[in-house]
Amino acid sequence: MDERFAELKHRLADIHDLRRAQEVLFWDQMVMMPPGGGPVRGAQLTTLDRIAHARFVDDEVGRLLEELRPWEESLDYDSDEASLVRTTRRDWEKARRVPAELAAEMVGAAAEAHDVWAKARQESDYASFLPHLERAVELKRRYVDCFEGYDDPYDVLLDDYEPGMKTAEVRAVFDELKADLVPLIAEVGSLEPEEEFMQGPFPIDAQHQFSLRVIERFGYDPQFFRLDLTVHPFAASSGTEDIRLTTRYGEHDITSVFTAMHECGHGLYEHGVAQSLERTPLCHGVSSALHESQSRMWENIVGRSRAFWNHFYPQLQAAFPQALGDVEQERFYRAINRVRPSYIRVDSDEATYNLHIILRFELEQEIMAGTVALKDLPEAWNTRFEEYFGIPIPNDSVGVLQDVHWSGGGFGYFPTYSLGNIVSVQIWDRVRSELPDLLDGFEHGEFGQLHEWLRTNLYSLGRKFTPQETLERVVGGPIDAKPYIRYLREKLGTLAAA
Amino acid sequence: MDERFAELKHRLADIHDLRRAQEVLFWDQMVMMPPGGGPVRGAQLTTLDRIAHARFVDDEVGRLLEELRPWEESLDYDSDEASLVRTTRRDWEKARRVPAELAAEMVGAAAEAHDVWAKARQESDYASFLPHLERAVELKRRYVDCFEGYDDPYDVLLDDYEPGMKTAEVRAVFDELKADLVPLIAEVGSLEPEEEFMQGPFPIDAQHQFSLRVIERFGYDPQFFRLDLTVHPFAASSGTEDIRLTTRYGEHDITSVFTAMHECGHGLYEHGVAQSLERTPLCHGVSSALHESQSRMWENIVGRSRAFWNHFYPQLQAAFPQALGDVEQERFYRAINRVRPSYIRVDSDEATYNLHIILRFELEQEIMAGTVALKDLPEAWNTRFEEYFGIPIPNDSVGVLQDVHWSGGGFGYFPTYSLGNIVSVQIWDRVRSELPDLLDGFEHGEFGQLHEWLRTNLYSLGRKFTPQETLERVVGGPIDAKPYIRYLREKLGTLAAA
Repeated sequence: MDERFAELKHRLADIHDLRRAQEVLFWDQMVMMPPGGGPVRGAQLTTLDRIAHARFVDDEVGRLLEELRPWEESLDYDSDEASLVRTTRRDWEKARRVPAELAAEMVGAAAEAHDVWAKARQESDYASFLPHLERAVELKRRYVDCFEGYDDPYDVLLDDYEPGMKTAEVRAVFDELKADLVPLIAEVGSLEPEEEFMQGPFPIDAQHQFSLRVIERFGYDPQFFRLDLTVHPFAASSGTEDIRLTTRYGEHDITSVFTAMHECGHGLYEHGVAQSLERTPLCHGVSSALHESQSRMWENIVGRSRAFWNHFYPQLQAAFPQALGDVEQERFYRAINRVRPSYIRVDSDEATYNLHIILRFELEQEIMAGTVALKDLPEAWNTRFEEYFGIPIPNDSVGVLQDVHWSGGGFGYFPTYSLGNIVSVQIWDRVRSELPDLLDGFEHGEFGQLHEWLRTNLYSLGRKFTPQETLERVVGGPIDAKPYIRYLREKLGTLAAA
Repeated sequence: MDERFAELKHRLADIHDLRRAQEVLFWDQMVMMPPGGGPVRGAQLTTLDRIAHARFVDDEVGRLLEELRPWEESLDYDSDEASLVRTTRRDWEKARRVPAELAAEMVGAAAEAHDVWAKARQESDYASFLPHLERAVELKRRYVDCFEGYDDPYDVLLDDYEPGMKTAEVRAVFDELKADLVPLIAEVGSLEPEEEFMQGPFPIDAQHQFSLRVIERFGYDPQFFRLDLTVHPFAASSGTEDIRLTTRYGEHDITSVFTAMHECGHGLYEHGVAQSLERTPLCHGVSSALHESQSRMWENIVGRSRAFWNHFYPQLQAAFPQALGDVEQERFYRAINRVRPSYIRVDSDEATYNLHIILRFELEQEIMAGTVALKDLPEAWNTRFEEYFGIPIPNDSVGVLQDVHWSGGGFGYFPTYSLGNIVSVQIWDRVRSELPDLLDGFEHGEFGQLHEWLRTNLYSLGRKFTPQETLERVVGGPIDAKPYIRYLREKLGTLAAA
């Protein structure tokens, strides 16, 4: 068995190396590549993907997994070895279900649709995007048909980002959240424009220095991390000891500080995976929602807290004296936590963000069920948006066309953003109960206790367990919206009261 | 046949994509990677190399090449298609001769020896490096044994860098060069220290700006090129439209300007390969010597010429007023062209550089022939060095241990540096005869004529022909040291006379 396991591990290491090479090549494309390199880089990424996929779905991998089954079952469930065989078998069975031709067609359609979408968004021209959206949905239906045994076709889509999560479960959680969120936002939200000091100026070099100073306190270490510029910030990694964060700066926008914290959360998760899982398919965060719980925790729960700013606000003022020199901390704190209904998901505040997600989740189900015709999607979007946010959508650029996801067939991804918010507070509550003096540390710019707890209890696990098992181990139960609702009520309540 | 050729091309494109991914990952490692990423990156590079190699030496590739032979022979010899089949067959037959185990052993030995060598050099401790050098030579002998039909075992090593080049031919060329060079250097060389203004200060940002300004005139275009920092400068590429140059800066050293020109020469070659060869194994410069001819041409023949500095010297003075404000152009010109025997190859001047190479070439042959015992190598080095340079070697750090090449088994590489020098002047003479007003352009900072000629006559060919065929097409004859000797005599003669 040892020999077969070694053979499996060797094959998986090769595939993992190819996947990581893709990740580095993608990072390079977004951050470093001269513009002319685009077409060849696209071909390289496609080739690496095809080779890695072919090596993974190989019959021999399946045979090894089958032969290893008794051995795996004889091992401790929590062992690295049993987890590797178990998780790989699930991945393999799933990957085998999708014919290579369909996978290639989906990749091709996504590449074609991307540019059309970008132009359509710019020109608020939904009609030009419609045929590509129709094709994306058609392909996604064929994708769903590759699977069986699901309760809801949407389960299949969700499973790509949140393995094992059921549509019914998400619906229950979101319904509960929505029931509280809509009245709460109506109560505490304001449509007034942002305070003028939030327009800066915020010199870009000072933003970079300040961002680094903050995330270095979180655990960013130049021995293992980089922070670079890009258009749409993301985090990538070549291994647990090579983490690439990206951000962007605007002279009249201090968002970059929160972007850095957000991407650092993703990076700390990848950096914290146990060394013993390096170069295996377990060497990643376990799911989109769990990953997002970490970016949101460091960005919102930590980075928009009073304790955090009690330490950092004087430094922020010193970094941006022109914009913030005369602005007292409480005013700044309220500005960065203001609830303000707006059209664009990525610019929205911590609370309304979830309504943007719920809207998309509901529409995605209706699209897949065929209960909304794609030609009527803008109308469905606009009607529902006004119902949830209380403001009308002026055009499709800031409505149904705003996000890139659907152009690439990324149905099922959106919900994980809000699931991440929900989970982040479940984890936070657990951390707080185990580390009662956590906030005292924050007041002194110390975040090591939090980082260490998360590393031990979550990050180090990688993909050894399912997302559900992982959450169970970290917080002692399944996903639950109540702590998040309570957290929002408390935070926004103190803002409204003050 | 069309189908079989398409199948071959498809396989070669995949392999090429893997090779390019390796190149980007290597560039990333040297330029961008956080230090902690080293071990995993090493594993990734090894995996990509192994996968690419295995796909290439596959029987099926050989079968396709064999089946395509009649078709290939029916095509125009110069066509892309015939050249692809022909060149690939040569590559394949060579790659098949080396057992995977030996190749892996060589890679492993090189990795192990590298750190030992670095430490040995630092401590001038040849004894600690000796066992690794012995192993490297032993492996290289086994490598030579994989081949047959050579005139000299050293031919096999040379062939890895300069396909088709014979030891006897190099020896003849070098003997001719040495016969002229030793007395010439004795005549015009000087051991006096460098002029003080060459110590700067040269503020680093100004060096970067000036380097960019120069190479932008050569053909560097940010749409297709990058210039970054590294420890040991090199050029890499992800494709013809994605060229990565690297350089380094020292506050008391203006060498960076020449490094940028040197690497730009390599980059222009790769950038100029015909678009029709993209994603094929022909999409590279044809050999080390031809490549080096281009880096040397742009660095030395162009970048150390009077015409070049007639245009750029006022700008250089303006960039570095403190160091150069009072230094007249002729004094600067003489300083950058001074012949000064010194220990270290990479720091040496245009003329003595070749003696460093000839010394290594001669020792490499004796090592492979076994006529010098490895334990006696330092003595052999030192004796010969004093004979050629007229100065004694004080310790092995600046003698036999100075270069990394042998630790990695890179025997056969050194000669290509000087062959590049020789070829660069053969090409230069041809360009001059075809473009009589070339230097007038240089005087105005115009290098487009030269770039265009080289692109049309050399760069665009890629690896379609052998190095010998390529040189024949570019200059109308085989390698010949005479033009280079004449060039050096003329250039150094004017310096001595002035």
